[in-house]
Amino acid sequence: MDSLKVTPWEVSGELNEGAYKKLVEKFGVDIINDILLNRIKKAAHGKLHPFLYRGIFFAHRDLGAILDDYEKGKPFYLYTGRGPSGKMHLGHLLPFTFTKWLQDTFDVHLVIQITDDEKYLVKKSDKKEIEKMAEENVLDILSLGFDREKTHIIKDFDSAKSLYYYATDVAKHTTLSTVKAVFGITDSDNIGKAFFPSMQIVPSFIIPAITGKKIRCLIPYAIDQDPYFRVSRDVLPKLGYYKPSSIISKFLPALQGNTAKMSSSSPESAIFLDDDEKTVKRKLMKYAFSGGRDTLEEQRKYGANPDIDFSFNVYSFLESDQEKIEKVYGEYKSGSMLSGEMKAIAADKINGFLSDLRKNREAVKDYVQDYAFDPERLRL
Amino acid sequence: MDSLKVTPWEVSGELNEGAYKKLVEKFGVDIINDILLNRIKKAAHGKLHPFLYRGIFFAHRDLGAILDDYEKGKPFYLYTGRGPSGKMHLGHLLPFTFTKWLQDTFDVHLVIQITDDEKYLVKKSDKKEIEKMAEENVLDILSLGFDREKTHIIKDFDSAKSLYYYATDVAKHTTLSTVKAVFGITDSDNIGKAFFPSMQIVPSFIIPAITGKKIRCLIPYAIDQDPYFRVSRDVLPKLGYYKPSSIISKFLPALQGNTAKMSSSSPESAIFLDDDEKTVKRKLMKYAFSGGRDTLEEQRKYGANPDIDFSFNVYSFLESDQEKIEKVYGEYKSGSMLSGEMKAIAADKINGFLSDLRKNREAVKDYVQDYAFDPERLRL
Repeated sequence: MDSLKVTPWEVSGELNEGAYKKLVEKFGVDIINDILLNRIKKAAHGKLHPFLYRGIFFAHRDLGAILDDYEKGKPFYLYTGRGPSGKMHLGHLLPFTFTKWLQDTFDVHLVIQITDDEKYLVKKSDKKEIEKMAEENVLDILSLGFDREKTHIIKDFDSAKSLYYYATDVAKHTTLSTVKAVFGITDSDNIGKAFFPSMQIVPSFIIPAITGKKIRCLIPYAIDQDPYFRVSRDVLPKLGYYKPSSIISKFLPALQGNTAKMSSSSPESAIFLDDDEKTVKRKLMKYAFSGGRDTLEEQRKYGANPDIDFSFNVYSFLESDQEKIEKVYGEYKSGSMLSGEMKAIAADKINGFLSDLRKNREAVKDYVQDYAFDPERLRL
Repeated sequence: MDSLKVTPWEVSGELNEGAYKKLVEKFGVDIINDILLNRIKKAAHGKLHPFLYRGIFFAHRDLGAILDDYEKGKPFYLYTGRGPSGKMHLGHLLPFTFTKWLQDTFDVHLVIQITDDEKYLVKKSDKKEIEKMAEENVLDILSLGFDREKTHIIKDFDSAKSLYYYATDVAKHTTLSTVKAVFGITDSDNIGKAFFPSMQIVPSFIIPAITGKKIRCLIPYAIDQDPYFRVSRDVLPKLGYYKPSSIISKFLPALQGNTAKMSSSSPESAIFLDDDEKTVKRKLMKYAFSGGRDTLEEQRKYGANPDIDFSFNVYSFLESDQEKIEKVYGEYKSGSMLSGEMKAIAADKINGFLSDLRKNREAVKDYVQDYAFDPERLRL
């Protein structure tokens, strides 16, 4: 745990089960229990997204309150986001399949924030490059087919007029001491980095703020983003809004194993959205961490451990038919399926997914503007 | 000097000549010398604004560079601003007569920033009230008759889209240590106050930023606003812009004497723009600090000291005819004019000025939108 560092800007150290357990305690979030899972399942007519039954989304805050409202017929909305990056890889995009599943299941509005300002303040120096990345990332995300009426893309720089007005509400109630303690910001950091949390917190109340309707917000995110929403939970009640609810995931495994995030800074650890079929297959065969045995004989005799197998994991995230997944799991675990076969199944699944994306991406270019954040469109 | 406190948010202590001298040293600004005054006079066809020949605007930074550019026919622009307040008084409005004089003299673009965000982050809590004050203040300011083609009102909240985009450039190059040292911000201050200097610095490069033309900016301000532009001078060259030039004033005297600012928090110390003729006269007669003698006999014998006389000062700021001012000065100083007569002359001058304002104010309401900041209008 000493070597574990998890902030919104840096994740390092071994991410095993013990590490997640300690993060849960440190951050004070709750584990998603079977009661909650069953309530979601009921709303989803018996089908859970793989991220839920595979325990990738494993923790939450006030998820019960969201389900209470839903069951009473009261609306809520979803908020997620992305810091613009160069080419998106599968690990970047998969969380959005979960958000889309939530939107489809609950039929709710969704705000997607693109934090071009954070990228500029904290990491990159070329605004033009960041804007280009933001544009491409938005096309990648929208290729998943989000509801055109109910999805609202907020690019921070473009939407600054609406965002900044409300960000000052957060800023006025957040001291430098707080952001130093929660985000590890120091006096040698720039003043924009200290202010930026205000901008990321706004979407968690922007729909009630603009519409005047007191509704809840549910935010799916990986656990490194939790500091923003801890601050948000302190501030929002002071402004007359609900605390935001969260549904919180672990990190997706990198190709080489379960203990690091898929990362675009080590290109071979990631499958990019524009990787062709051969590249996907080659990356899986060559680099994907396997839960299989060292020899054919051992594999036949003892079977694989699918839970730590990259190919099985990715396959299970992309396959919507839970029975198929369980069949593959059983065969692989029993030893009747070999590592190479598992990799081939995963490669096919990934290639089918990427091929659909690429088709959608071309179409989306024609109507991407329909998704742009516009206060007028937020009136429920 | 120990009791003197001058920050953008607080001014206290005795503001005598010694205090200004020490501020000049502490801030590292230059005194406006006769060479500069003569260059301005030449540009203004021999006529100086009272604030210049009366030494109210007394210090500067890089004013010579502005005059160099002007003499070579290169454009520059002006930037000034106001934190929205309740009813504006004469002391609030007079600095704008100087800015208007500069605009008329040099025929240049002018950006007027209304810092509604600062007011909210640092002082008031009711955004609706601040917005109302901002609207009224803008009408008051525009009643002076600023060039409709070349004047650009930036209300920070309204213009946040353009402002915030460039504010991140300043923020990225400004550390928390810097704003702590320069503005006296501490860890218990809110994160918006730490970020806000970025927003106030943007107008000092927004015209070059939007037009792509490398031109200089001249900023007239009272010396308490200097910290913003010290930071600005560090940051702007890093972004490829000129350091801004400044022309810096003392504070206007309160009614009760020369040593405090006119302040709306002690209403009797100020003449408000909607004070009627009788009120103006009464306030001058009752409260205006006089440089005259205690008795009629002494006044006739020794004469008054006009330099510390409130009524003479205000009269001299509003009278455009320098010869008339000198005549009044001579008569009052010699003793042939009495204190009451000086007050009556000042009251007439002020009432004429206020009456013009009120007429213009009604007319301005119909076209105030023409002055709104719009990047398209900034293309030179």
